Amino acid sequence: MASYDPRDFRALTFHDATAGFRDGGDTPRAFLERCLETIAAREPTVRAWVVTNVEGARAAADASTARWKAGQPLSPIDGMPVGIKDLLETRDMPTQMGCVAYRGNFPKRDNAAVWALREAGAVVLGKTVTTELGGAHPGPTTNPFDQTRTPGGSSSGSAAVVGARMVPAALGTQVGGSVIRPAAYCGNIALKPSQGGLNRGERQATSMSTTGVHAGSIEDMWLVAKAIATRAGGDPGRPGLVGPDAPPLAQRPMVVGVMETEGWPRLDDASKTAFEQVVERLRAQGVTVLRRDQPALAAFEDALVGAQAMANGITGWENHWLFRNLVALNADGISARSKAVLAAAEKRTPEDYRLFLVQREALRARHAALTGVVDALIAPACPGPAPVWAGDVPGQPLVARPTGEAVFNVPSSAIGAPAVTVPLASVGGMPFGIQVMTQLQTDAQATAIARWMLETIEPVIG
Amino acid sequence: MASYDPRDFRALTFHDATAGFRDGGDTPRAFLERCLETIAAREPTVRAWVVTNVEGARAAADASTARWKAGQPLSPIDGMPVGIKDLLETRDMPTQMGCVAYRGNFPKRDNAAVWALREAGAVVLGKTVTTELGGAHPGPTTNPFDQTRTPGGSSSGSAAVVGARMVPAALGTQVGGSVIRPAAYCGNIALKPSQGGLNRGERQATSMSTTGVHAGSIEDMWLVAKAIATRAGGDPGRPGLVGPDAPPLAQRPMVVGVMETEGWPRLDDASKTAFEQVVERLRAQGVTVLRRDQPALAAFEDALVGAQAMANGITGWENHWLFRNLVALNADGISARSKAVLAAAEKRTPEDYRLFLVQREALRARHAALTGVVDALIAPACPGPAPVWAGDVPGQPLVARPTGEAVFNVPSSAIGAPAVTVPLASVGGMPFGIQVMTQLQTDAQATAIARWMLETIEPVIG
Repeated sequence: MASYDPRDFRALTFHDATAGFRDGGDTPRAFLERCLETIAAREPTVRAWVVTNVEGARAAADASTARWKAGQPLSPIDGMPVGIKDLLETRDMPTQMGCVAYRGNFPKRDNAAVWALREAGAVVLGKTVTTELGGAHPGPTTNPFDQTRTPGGSSSGSAAVVGARMVPAALGTQVGGSVIRPAAYCGNIALKPSQGGLNRGERQATSMSTTGVHAGSIEDMWLVAKAIATRAGGDPGRPGLVGPDAPPLAQRPMVVGVMETEGWPRLDDASKTAFEQVVERLRAQGVTVLRRDQPALAAFEDALVGAQAMANGITGWENHWLFRNLVALNADGISARSKAVLAAAEKRTPEDYRLFLVQREALRARHAALTGVVDALIAPACPGPAPVWAGDVPGQPLVARPTGEAVFNVPSSAIGAPAVTVPLASVGGMPFGIQVMTQLQTDAQATAIARWMLETIEPVIG
Repeated sequence: MASYDPRDFRALTFHDATAGFRDGGDTPRAFLERCLETIAAREPTVRAWVVTNVEGARAAADASTARWKAGQPLSPIDGMPVGIKDLLETRDMPTQMGCVAYRGNFPKRDNAAVWALREAGAVVLGKTVTTELGGAHPGPTTNPFDQTRTPGGSSSGSAAVVGARMVPAALGTQVGGSVIRPAAYCGNIALKPSQGGLNRGERQATSMSTTGVHAGSIEDMWLVAKAIATRAGGDPGRPGLVGPDAPPLAQRPMVVGVMETEGWPRLDDASKTAFEQVVERLRAQGVTVLRRDQPALAAFEDALVGAQAMANGITGWENHWLFRNLVALNADGISARSKAVLAAAEKRTPEDYRLFLVQREALRARHAALTGVVDALIAPACPGPAPVWAGDVPGQPLVARPTGEAVFNVPSSAIGAPAVTVPLASVGGMPFGIQVMTQLQTDAQATAIARWMLETIEPVIG
C-alpha cells in the first residue's frame, strides 16, 4: 500500500501559481476548485476535515480573483486555500477540538492567526481533525500514503490535507511534537516557530505550545508564517517571528550537530540507516557534522535525559484545571486516555511544576551554549515512519501513543527553538522527515538551511 | 456625600468568621445571607453586579456549612462569598465583558482561578461590572462612598462590592492599573500579584495582565490568592504565587523608596500632602525613606519616563486583532472609546511593538537593580481620590479616562512586580490608597510590609 517516494512526490504549491493569477492564465477560484476536486477524491479515505465552508471559500476565492485581476492582492498568499486545525477558533465554523465536551462549540470568533490569514486574503476552507484537545486520543484521519497508518498527531488533519495535496498549507499547533511529527509522517514541509513566534490568540494555556505551518513547499510555509506575524504578531510579550518577508534563500551550514535525544535507542534500524545516509550526504557537501562526543553537544544531550517526562509533567499540570473543569461539567466529556493524563497531573503539586520549570531553564541554557558551535542541530523528525493504527480494541489496554512518539520533537518544544522538517527520506515506502533546529528567533536561518538541504541533498530511499 | 474615614471604616472580613463556622455560632449560609442583605440595600445605588446566581450560591453555602460542621472544610476560604470580574469565564453565568459584542456570551466554562476558588469551597456569588473589555469605557457602577464618583476601573464592580461591604473579596484583573486603582478609590486592600502569579486561564491575550484580589483584609486577600495558586497555579510557564500558606505576618521594612512616576506632577495638592504625611509617619517608625535623589532610584525614575505610552502601545497592539475581529463581526460591537484605541494601535507595526518590548526590558533591569537598595517602593495608588463622573455628554468629546488615571500603576504592571494597596488615607472624605511594590516573586514580602503599615501607621486624614 505504502507508496511514497520523495524523488517523485510533488506536493501542492501556491507560490508558483500567483504569476498565473496576475496574467489571467489561472485564478484563485480555479485553484480552489482543483483543491475541492482532490478533496472529493481523497477525503472518503483520508478523513482529514471536520467541517468545510465551501460556500464561504468560493466567495473568498472570487474576491481574491478580482484583487489579483486588479493587480492589488492583499499579500503573496491572497487566495491560498488553507486548513485550520480544529483547536483554533474560526468565526464561520465550529471549534470542537476533537472532544466530546466541545461538541457544537461555536464561539463565532477568529483565532489571531486565522484572523491574520483572512486579512492577508487567504481562503479559510475548513477545520482539520485534531486529536482530542491536542493530546494522545486520535481522530479518524488516516495517513495519505497508507490508510492503515496514523497521520500522526495532534495536527493529524493539517498534516494529512497537505500530504494528500488537498491544500497547499494548513495551520497546526505543537506542544510536544504535534506539528513536526505528523508533518514528517505525511511528507510535509513544516515550521514549528520559535516559542511565541505566531500569535496563538485564545490558545495560550500551555507554555510550550506554538502555532505552526504545514505546507507543500518552503516558500508557502514561510509566506504563511510571515503573513500571520506581520498582521497578528507573536504571542503577547514575545517579539514574534522575525526574518525577511520573502522566503529565505538556501544557505549551506558550515557545521551541524546531530541531536540524538532520548529517542535514539528507539529508532528502528531502517530509519537509523536512512538518517545516517543523510548525514553522509551532508558531509559529502562539505558540511562539518559534529556528534555527541563533542563536549558541548554531550552536555546538551545529558540535559535532554528526562526531557520527555519533564515536558509531559509541565503540560499535564498546565492543562489539569481545564481537563478537570470539563470532567466536572460532563463526566464523559473527555476520553479515557485524557482522563489518564489528568489523573497523572493531579498527583503533581505546584512545587513539582516549579522544579520542572527550573529543569527546562537548565536545558535552554545548554542549548544556548551551542550558539556558534553549530549552525543547526539535525535529527530525525520521528522515531520511524508512521506506525500502523487500527483503532482501540475493546477490552484491551489503551495504546498510549497511537499517533506516534514525540521524543524527537520534545527538545525544540521545551527549548522554544524553531524547527523545520523536510521530507528528505522514505522508509519502507513511507515519508521520513529530517528536522533542522536552530537558536531562538532564528526561524529564518532554520528555514534557509532546510531549504538548502532540500535543494542540495539527494533524498534517501530506505 | 463623601464620608470615608479610614480610622472608622470596617470592611467585611471572612477569616475571622470561620471560628464560628467550626463551633456552630455562625454558618457560611448565614454569612451569605448577610451579604445578600447588604447587596439588597446597596446595589440599587452602587450597581456593581452584572448578574448573580443566588440559588447556586445558597446551595454552595449550604454544602460549605455541612463541611465546616463536619470539621472538614476544603480550605480556609471554604464558604467565602466572592465576586468575579465579568472578564473571567464562569460556567454558571454569562461572561459579557461590558461589551456589546459579547452580549449573551455564555461559554459554560470556569476560568482557571474561578475553578480553583470553587475547588477551595468558595461561593461564587456573581459577576461584577468591568469597563468594556477591561479598557477605558465605563460601566454603570458608582463609588460606594460617593455615588457621583467613579469606582475606578477596569475592575469597577469588584472594587465596589468590597468597598460596599457586599462580599469580603472579589477577583479583578489589571493590565495598566485596573486592580490597584479602583481598589484605592474604594477603600479596598488589594494584591496585583507578580506577573503570572495567578493562572489567568483563558485570559492570556495581553502580556501585562494579571488576575488580582480585592479584599477587606490582608488575611482574606492572601488566603484567596493562595487558594488559587495552590490549585490552578500561575500562568503557563510561570512559577506562580509563592509564599506561606498562612497570611504573612507584619514586617517592618528597613528602607523604602518613594516612586514618583510620571504621575507626580499630576497629583493634586491635598493628595500629595496626605502621601507626604504617610512618608513622615514611616520615618517616625524608624524606616529609612529614600527619594529620587538616590542614584539607582533616579535611574529607575528616568526609565519610567514614557512608560505609560509604552504600556498603552504594548497593550493596544496585543489587543488589536481581537478588537478588529469584534468590529468585523459587529460594527457597533465595541464603543467609540475602544475604537479610538484600535485606530491608534493599527498605526503601529510589529517593529514598533518589538521596540516597546525592549524598552520594557530596560525598565525591568532598572527595577531589578533596586534589589537590596530598597525593601520596597511606595507610591500613591492613584493620582488623587476617585474623580467625579456623570457620564458622557452627547455632542461633547469623550472624556479619555472616566475611571481615572493608571499612571501610578503602570510601573508594577509593566515590570510585572507585585503591588499591594492599603487604604491608609482619606482625601476630602474619599479613600486614598498607598501602594507597596517589591521585586518579582516577592508577593509575600509586599504583603508583609503592607500589613505592617496597616497595623502600625496611623491613617492620614487629608
